[in-house]
Amino acid sequence: MAIHFFEPGVYYSTMGPHEPVLHIQSGDSVVTSTIDARGADRNLQEVGSRPNPMTGPFYIQEARPGDTLAIRFDQITPSRDSGWTFNALDHQVIDAAAYKDMPPREILQWTIDRHAGTVGLSNPLPGLGHLQRKMAPFLGCFGVAPARKETITTATSAEHGGNMDYRKFTAQSTVYLPVHEPGALFFLGDGHASQGDGEIVGTGIETSMTVQFTATVIPGRTIGWPRGEDEAYIFAIGNAKPLELAVKHATTEMLKWLQQDYGLDEVSASTLLGQHVEYEIGNIFNPAYTMVCKLSKAILSGIQI
Amino acid sequence: MAIHFFEPGVYYSTMGPHEPVLHIQSGDSVVTSTIDARGADRNLQEVGSRPNPMTGPFYIQEARPGDTLAIRFDQITPSRDSGWTFNALDHQVIDAAAYKDMPPREILQWTIDRHAGTVGLSNPLPGLGHLQRKMAPFLGCFGVAPARKETITTATSAEHGGNMDYRKFTAQSTVYLPVHEPGALFFLGDGHASQGDGEIVGTGIETSMTVQFTATVIPGRTIGWPRGEDEAYIFAIGNAKPLELAVKHATTEMLKWLQQDYGLDEVSASTLLGQHVEYEIGNIFNPAYTMVCKLSKAILSGIQI
Amino acid sequence: MAIHFFEPGVYYSTMGPHEPVLHIQSGDSVVTSTIDARGADRNLQEVGSRPNPMTGPFYIQEARPGDTLAIRFDQITPSRDSGWTFNALDHQVIDAAAYKDMPPREILQWTIDRHAGTVGLSNPLPGLGHLQRKMAPFLGCFGVAPARKETITTATSAEHGGNMDYRKFTAQSTVYLPVHEPGALFFLGDGHASQGDGEIVGTGIETSMTVQFTATVIPGRTIGWPRGEDEAYIFAIGNAKPLELAVKHATTEMLKWLQQDYGLDEVSASTLLGQHVEYEIGNIFNPAYTMVCKLSKAILSGIQI
Amino acid sequence: MAIHFFEPGVYYSTMGPHEPVLHIQSGDSVVTSTIDARGADRNLQEVGSRPNPMTGPFYIQEARPGDTLAIRFDQITPSRDSGWTFNALDHQVIDAAAYKDMPPREILQWTIDRHAGTVGLSNPLPGLGHLQRKMAPFLGCFGVAPARKETITTATSAEHGGNMDYRKFTAQSTVYLPVHEPGALFFLGDGHASQGDGEIVGTGIETSMTVQFTATVIPGRTIGWPRGEDEAYIFAIGNAKPLELAVKHATTEMLKWLQQDYGLDEVSASTLLGQHVEYEIGNIFNPAYTMVCKLSKAILSGIQI
Repeated sequence: MAIHFFEPGVYYSTMGPHEPVLHIQSGDSVVTSTIDARGADRNLQEVGSRPNPMTGPFYIQEARPGDTLAIRFDQITPSRDSGWTFNALDHQVIDAAAYKDMPPREILQWTIDRHAGTVGLSNPLPGLGHLQRKMAPFLGCFGVAPARKETITTATSAEHGGNMDYRKFTAQSTVYLPVHEPGALFFLGDGHASQGDGEIVGTGIETSMTVQFTATVIPGRTIGWPRGEDEAYIFAIGNAKPLELAVKHATTEMLKWLQQDYGLDEVSASTLLGQHVEYEIGNIFNPAYTMVCKLSKAILSGIQI
Repeated sequence: MAIHFFEPGVYYSTMGPHEPVLHIQSGDSVVTSTIDARGADRNLQEVGSRPNPMTGPFYIQEARPGDTLAIRFDQITPSRDSGWTFNALDHQVIDAAAYKDMPPREILQWTIDRHAGTVGLSNPLPGLGHLQRKMAPFLGCFGVAPARKETITTATSAEHGGNMDYRKFTAQSTVYLPVHEPGALFFLGDGHASQGDGEIVGTGIETSMTVQFTATVIPGRTIGWPRGEDEAYIFAIGNAKPLELAVKHATTEMLKWLQQDYGLDEVSASTLLGQHVEYEIGNIFNPAYTMVCKLSKAILSGIQI
Repeated sequence: MAIHFFEPGVYYSTMGPHEPVLHIQSGDSVVTSTIDARGADRNLQEVGSRPNPMTGPFYIQEARPGDTLAIRFDQITPSRDSGWTFNALDHQVIDAAAYKDMPPREILQWTIDRHAGTVGLSNPLPGLGHLQRKMAPFLGCFGVAPARKETITTATSAEHGGNMDYRKFTAQSTVYLPVHEPGALFFLGDGHASQGDGEIVGTGIETSMTVQFTATVIPGRTIGWPRGEDEAYIFAIGNAKPLELAVKHATTEMLKWLQQDYGLDEVSASTLLGQHVEYEIGNIFNPAYTMVCKLSKAILSGIQI
Repeated sequence: MAIHFFEPGVYYSTMGPHEPVLHIQSGDSVVTSTIDARGADRNLQEVGSRPNPMTGPFYIQEARPGDTLAIRFDQITPSRDSGWTFNALDHQVIDAAAYKDMPPREILQWTIDRHAGTVGLSNPLPGLGHLQRKMAPFLGCFGVAPARKETITTATSAEHGGNMDYRKFTAQSTVYLPVHEPGALFFLGDGHASQGDGEIVGTGIETSMTVQFTATVIPGRTIGWPRGEDEAYIFAIGNAKPLELAVKHATTEMLKWLQQDYGLDEVSASTLLGQHVEYEIGNIFNPAYTMVCKLSKAILSGIQI
């Protein structure tokens, strides 16, 4: 249960069977740093390149294809005092006529007050002022080496994780990822100080982060899509286009979860979901959209296993 | 500001320019009853026919095309002690292989305890028991006569409302509907005692209801899609297939709302939404899917109008 | 087997249970005229209004719900010397960045030479000149009163036909439509002098037409979606959004056709289609897209019934 | 302009920066063999593994990122006397209810008569007999190393080509591919003796092939998506899900082609396409669908460059 302090020197814009930067053991924690979506580090030095340069990969000794890798995000904290967003709704979320009215895509600067735990526009916008809000930092992109010996750009997402931009992956949440390569090869990056649902302007507040995570291998457990949990929910994730297909993947993964771990048959699982399912959009901007299928732990605690 | 007590004698399975059942004035309230999606009333007598037989239409004297009709749901209460759901996830939310495993569609009976305010399975299911939960009654289907002289089945939804199955339209919520015909012609029905997101088994807990609503005409105000509000949120609704198109309609309607009522330009509105938007799926089962684009009133209260 | 000469005096922009303009018998032919998509007749007088004002409905005496109505287009001929198109690709067929470059939607005028059987741009365009081509006149919109007592705008299409804009419905082709109302109530209009696949600029060359058609009722034969045939093909049509759903409806209707009329089981029908199916896009512009699933009659003639 | 005879010893199920199997020069031809989608060679020995094991990659000396690689298929001939297909329509092309009726997926054997140039079912099916037809051999999967250092499974397709299953890529056709890596790294395989549109049973008649192709580098010419031509048409290809997005990519690529090589502006290009475009579905089965946007060379010959 060691804690490793790791300062990255190389950043990948793909997830694949790259040379590991560090070997750790199941149960170990890592404190490391991530750079922003365009490669700027805590000193605003451009040390990586788009899209979404990743810290890692980390090789977890016990992980074998067919296992599951659990990553608990212990801490996710901005490592600098600024971030940025795009300034306009993406064409994927508005009607074509409205898109013609959108201004050209430009960058807006945000100021991060780490002491107060807030973010706000560096320059006020009409009607919004500085739009001060609480930070809610999370990682937009993380995952493992994909199946089928693929090497996949960090612009997108699939069964292995990737650029999901789901804003509930804050500190204290856990993600479960299917292991496809020996050592799993965990990558992380693309920190957002905060974001609404769907990443509909194409970004969260993009910034560099200090991250602590703990990696645990669950041997012999096989999952199909990323799963996760936080204090209040378990959830399953589908990454695909169109959105319906992401819904299908996420719901099917949740269905299997309920069958395998909670012993429910199709009718019971359907009935539980029919009454209690919640959906959230991770992103509707990236090449693959992310849909999250959630169930409250309070509800599940009433299920007789 | 009269209160009308209206007992329906006819039920429509379309929304269109049908003969009004009652004329009321803007500001009036109506206490009435609705029957369930298959036409069964409070006594389980089949008095209407599928799909979603509607109470109404109500003619609101002041309403003219181009106005907006605000309907506040004052009370929505089950009028009998039983409801029903389907028993299996619909093919639209699960992968094709999982769908092949689903059992044939059958009806599950639910018991409604109006005194305790709970619902539960009439017969226990393995692992779930009676799956007792709190009621959260809402109307799945309501709307006005459509534009373009169309008469549209209550199986589906569009700009005029219809079968949206959005579970947050509980008592104390308000819906805003675009008026297309003189008198607006408001229809309502398809009560659900409770439901999860998306109506993914194809039903909520379908039952008959006693409903009180208050109708108010907002003259000269034109909207494109249904809007709504409850204590905590304002929201805009898109009804379309595929889900992306519903997202576009809902987000564009919210964008216009922020521009018109809150004086935000494209960049300010985009930035606010980029940080604070929330999405919910009304249904992903009906011929048109329903996506809801939401903004917290707490956030909006900080906007300088 | 009478021939009726009918000059319309009223035009509907919806298909529904409207008052018939003429009662005919199965086997009768009708010679009539249609006006263009914006309502201009052969004299360029605006006598109807958008969208797609229809001639009809024609009541075919023998037609009962559950029957099929066969309409053979005997002749479709432009009735004036001009037509018009839009000037730019619609946002639904090009990437968003390309759409931002598109000019504002304007009208281009075309000259129809009925003697030569050609159409050409009235004013030359750079690189194209007058883009002379052979006429290939067809009707973009026709159908019957819909099921479920709906009244549906002629902007769109569904099981009842409607605005399909499939360019192979030229003279000598036959369409089969499901009868939902007594008399079927056949509507027709929206003539195009010619068009490419998909109506991707949002129009064909829109003009008024003289049309002769022959209506035949096929009693007791029930179909789900429009079907058709011409000299070389039989085809089934799906009208829906997204395009995949239109593919599903069209292919399923063809599958049923092969099962019912050609006695093929699932494996044989699948195998035949797997080797010989052809797809064409009717339109990818209207609220519902149209996909056509085709089989060559030469291939079918080899099937042992 | 050498001709290389190359017998493969390794087969990749991904396209990426793999070690080249042969270096050739622009203008050279290669005669080689491909194995079928499951890895069976001309002797039915399983020498590769699913999905779609590829011959190659071939390194074309002059090819640099930003160039275009033209591959002319000189000959594509089955190298054995048997092939196979699946036996049932895929769930992606039929309505869910019809899919529930489909039999379990099984393999059907086909006999290839290379002398007669025909294929037929090895065992007759009810109503079809042996369904004899002419061979129309093509390659379902080919492409180059992708952009962004990705390594992509041959199950799917993207800008680099891949598993497009477009049945018009027969002998005498030419494909144009965007070069992303030095040498381009051309892969090929997945031969089909014949197939209908869309690969709707999930396969063509899968078999091993003898292929001759000629590779030519077009330096300094940059394209976004695969393009192609045969005797009668030029065409542009979009690979994506949903089908609408594939339509957009293909049409946009054709638009750019018309602008760059034919000097047409947006209005002229739109008008030409609006009258003369044709669409074909390559596949609607794979993880990315393939849509083809075509223009007749006869039409283009009338354009004034």
